[in-house]
Amino acid sequence: MTQRPAVLIMQRHLAPLSGFLESAYDVYRFWEGPPIEAAHDIRIMVVAGEAALDKALIERLPNLDLIACFTSGYDGIDIGWCRERDLPVTHAPGVNHEDVADHALGLILAARRQIASGDRQVRSGGWTAETRTITASLGGQKLGIIGLGHIGKAVADRAEAFRMAVSWWGPRPHDAEWPRADSLLALAKASDILVVACKADETNRGLISREILEALGPDGLLVNVSRGQVVDEDALIAALKSGSLGQAAIDVFIEEPTDPNRWADVPNVVLTPHTAGATTAGVQGMLMLLMQNLQAHFAGEPLKTPVV
Amino acid sequence: MTQRPAVLIMQRHLAPLSGFLESAYDVYRFWEGPPIEAAHDIRIMVVAGEAALDKALIERLPNLDLIACFTSGYDGIDIGWCRERDLPVTHAPGVNHEDVADHALGLILAARRQIASGDRQVRSGGWTAETRTITASLGGQKLGIIGLGHIGKAVADRAEAFRMAVSWWGPRPHDAEWPRADSLLALAKASDILVVACKADETNRGLISREILEALGPDGLLVNVSRGQVVDEDALIAALKSGSLGQAAIDVFIEEPTDPNRWADVPNVVLTPHTAGATTAGVQGMLMLLMQNLQAHFAGEPLKTPVV
Repeated sequence: MTQRPAVLIMQRHLAPLSGFLESAYDVYRFWEGPPIEAAHDIRIMVVAGEAALDKALIERLPNLDLIACFTSGYDGIDIGWCRERDLPVTHAPGVNHEDVADHALGLILAARRQIASGDRQVRSGGWTAETRTITASLGGQKLGIIGLGHIGKAVADRAEAFRMAVSWWGPRPHDAEWPRADSLLALAKASDILVVACKADETNRGLISREILEALGPDGLLVNVSRGQVVDEDALIAALKSGSLGQAAIDVFIEEPTDPNRWADVPNVVLTPHTAGATTAGVQGMLMLLMQNLQAHFAGEPLKTPVV
Repeated sequence: MTQRPAVLIMQRHLAPLSGFLESAYDVYRFWEGPPIEAAHDIRIMVVAGEAALDKALIERLPNLDLIACFTSGYDGIDIGWCRERDLPVTHAPGVNHEDVADHALGLILAARRQIASGDRQVRSGGWTAETRTITASLGGQKLGIIGLGHIGKAVADRAEAFRMAVSWWGPRPHDAEWPRADSLLALAKASDILVVACKADETNRGLISREILEALGPDGLLVNVSRGQVVDEDALIAALKSGSLGQAAIDVFIEEPTDPNRWADVPNVVLTPHTAGATTAGVQGMLMLLMQNLQAHFAGEPLKTPVV
């Protein structure tokens, strides 16, 4: 037995955290097998916010006293349930919103200026003396942003440098320089490009429905850098196949990793593997907040970035 | 015989111009066979600026009195040779520099944030629970721009919205807010990302040499939205293969269309089929200038946008 507190990392893609955590903690990795023998030692559960919280496991860890969410978003975590158990939750806000906004603009450019498909065309020999690809200029396109938080504002700032006209919608008013649409549907109707940048929770699951996608229309582009669950993914695929939606460029999916067969015959779509916020600087910032929250917890000090 | 002036379109990818030109002119298409029977009728040659001017053909067209270059760049046209023959040349400046700059940023994002390769990874099933792609944040990267003309300045404006630090080099000083490096080599050494945005001519053929690419280095990214000839393409390919250059993202090539086999085993490169300036708005602007130059020419008025 050791005197060091024990930490359980839940998701395999968080494995690189082990090396840092092991400097101060005993580390268990859930995917290496349930930590039955250490159930009484585990004090901290480290999770990715997009993954559903394993409540049954938590109920078998009698000394667990903190859920440390590595990411900014914590849509997989039932905060009310944790609150009932006096189980605090920390997360990593305000660290990578600039990087996510960069990626959103990269997705817009990759789709609208046909950079991803152009790269495929050149590599496949599809560029010939007879072909000439003409794309739509970004200048003057109307950009609608769903959710004017840190990410949404950073997207708006960048969009203006590309001569796009910005408006937005979200459930709460903001003191912002860009006009707020009367409704999500009105925003979709008025926009050439719609960027989903809101926080995901149970209130907005499937918010981007077939109706919204059809309002965006056959020349429209949907970009999602929020969470897969905010978009009705089956409706999105159907709309792209029928042409009732023009294009999509998405970094997040209902199930991650997404099944490539799901996208094999879907036209006009750019897909990235949930990398919008995963930058060296962003990950370092998230790691620093994680370590600071753990240190504060064991020192009996206020948590650095609690959710509740 | 007709009384309408005859126009010869030289490059096959300019074929869509035929419909517009036929409203006022008799149109010949060079790729349908040399216009031997019309040699005395042809008054105008419409060319793409990147293609080498067919001087031998021009000498067989006794009544040719204007070279109308559809594009902004006219690097394929020997202006001195035309001047000796009192043969005016028009082009289409200032029409699509914003679109070219948009595309340059799209290439930077596609390469640095791995959007093109991420799209391939998702489609091929390479995204698994074990993989996690971490990319470098654009924030704080040092962007060097070669050529601070319309395109270069538009790239600089956008780069600032992405929190990049901009400097530049060009043979002539400019009154600009961004610092000018002492030399191209100094710019390459100081930069994380180098964007080639200069006008191409005989003075800068092969300007981006092996030495410049190695100064940019194993973490560096080269972006070319100028002309293929400004970069030593063999040296570029060798540098990417050896790792002495980190990444490249290029829209222009020594030979266009480029041979895909040339790039099949070249790592860390994004390729687009010369689409940076080819937007609907840009092409309309170029078409309008072309028609205005032809009208002015036949009305005996000053040319709208002459090169010389």
